[in-house]
Amino acid sequence: MSGAAMSAAAMSAPGWIAVAGLGPGDAALITPEVSATLAQATDVVGYIPYVARVAPRPGLTLHASDNRVELERAAHALRLAAAGARVVVVSSGDPGVFAMAAALFEALEAGPHAWRTLDIRVLPGITAMLAASARAGAPLGHDFCAINLSDNLKPWPVVERRIALAAEADFAIAFYNPRSRARPDSLDTAFATLRRVCRDDRPVLFARAVTTSDEDLRIVGLSAARGEMADMRTVVIVGSSRTRIVERPGRPLLYTPRHAS
Amino acid sequence: MSGAAMSAAAMSAPGWIAVAGLGPGDAALITPEVSATLAQATDVVGYIPYVARVAPRPGLTLHASDNRVELERAAHALRLAAAGARVVVVSSGDPGVFAMAAALFEALEAGPHAWRTLDIRVLPGITAMLAASARAGAPLGHDFCAINLSDNLKPWPVVERRIALAAEADFAIAFYNPRSRARPDSLDTAFATLRRVCRDDRPVLFARAVTTSDEDLRIVGLSAARGEMADMRTVVIVGSSRTRIVERPGRPLLYTPRHAS
Repeated sequence: MSGAAMSAAAMSAPGWIAVAGLGPGDAALITPEVSATLAQATDVVGYIPYVARVAPRPGLTLHASDNRVELERAAHALRLAAAGARVVVVSSGDPGVFAMAAALFEALEAGPHAWRTLDIRVLPGITAMLAASARAGAPLGHDFCAINLSDNLKPWPVVERRIALAAEADFAIAFYNPRSRARPDSLDTAFATLRRVCRDDRPVLFARAVTTSDEDLRIVGLSAARGEMADMRTVVIVGSSRTRIVERPGRPLLYTPRHAS
Repeated sequence: MSGAAMSAAAMSAPGWIAVAGLGPGDAALITPEVSATLAQATDVVGYIPYVARVAPRPGLTLHASDNRVELERAAHALRLAAAGARVVVVSSGDPGVFAMAAALFEALEAGPHAWRTLDIRVLPGITAMLAASARAGAPLGHDFCAINLSDNLKPWPVVERRIALAAEADFAIAFYNPRSRARPDSLDTAFATLRRVCRDDRPVLFARAVTTSDEDLRIVGLSAARGEMADMRTVVIVGSSRTRIVERPGRPLLYTPRHAS
């Protein structure tokens, strides 16, 4: 079938959008639901490195775009689906956690009313903190929170106040997007906030590129934690006051018991 | 091969334990990693309804136990693996979120030192709040926390203080184990705590048995939220101050924008 005929076929059937999570990296962590949906898609839309994880095939058009254009990308996906395409918007991890699902709904709310009648599904995935937690043991075994350290989308004082309250509540804390070239100091500032409330030996897990060939895990005490131990591929998990380290041959186990103080 | 010969074969090879998440219910949300590991197991250990989700086959022994015996179940699994069995401990959702992984490490820490040399892996899964969030839209699209409302393992004042701080921090909040016959009032008490801080129209999602044939989703304002709208199969997600409802044909979309106030 020619490209033009393919497009015509796509246009004649009702389109849909699925916002799908590809998990942390290992293909064995992609759900069968996501794989089956990708197999039915005519178009895949996403950030360049995530689209690169989707195998090309005839009849599938890959639309890779740069970071920080989430709303444009979402609108593009909505237009494609409105024209009859079967579109999968890909995120790493889970699309509902600091990823494309919220961006898609922002674009939908701001766009033509007709978009609201589209068939839209969100397909969950293994988000980074769950994969990192699993590799390290079970640091999120009791109450926990997830905080996006990117200040592209929120003022830093809001972030800092939230961190202080999370520590006061004694949550284990997962920091997403802990550090970038544009924000070299945000994670150090977060650690400084935590040190005002938490003991020096509070365990901090730096989990980089979990489940990929670049995976690297490191556990240090809060007093030794440094922003430079993280990059954009790292998720950082700070234990609660109850989080324990169990020494054993090889890597120690990090876990938070189910019992609270 | 007879059962006795099978056991002898298992005993001669090194044993291992995998603590695996079966996701919220739909088999299409079980990761290929978990399916492949189950295919290699000699023994499956877990709470009755979770073990019931594993297909029986020759060579696989299913050990189903009642709720509230997590530590005994964990010790049983560790003993089996120490004797050479290939054991999968099954949880619903993700094993690291209010589930068996922490219990296993508690039992390991309290048990014989030899258990620390065992090959132990945690295999992540789609936890209930991510599946519920995906079904409703993206209510966890910005900073959020997860709180276990069971007070079997922690005193209620600790829970209540944590809820108040979480509301003050303006997290979206996922409540796990929101209500049981033994604790009919815990969720109503949690709502009362939230009403002191949050506006009446704060959206509350009751997501029951998500991805199963019993799935039921309901969104109400905080002032109309009642504990009786939940049971033990429900996860409750309370939006942040920024969470929005987008009306559309069929079920509305619930999502939290990426931008903070």
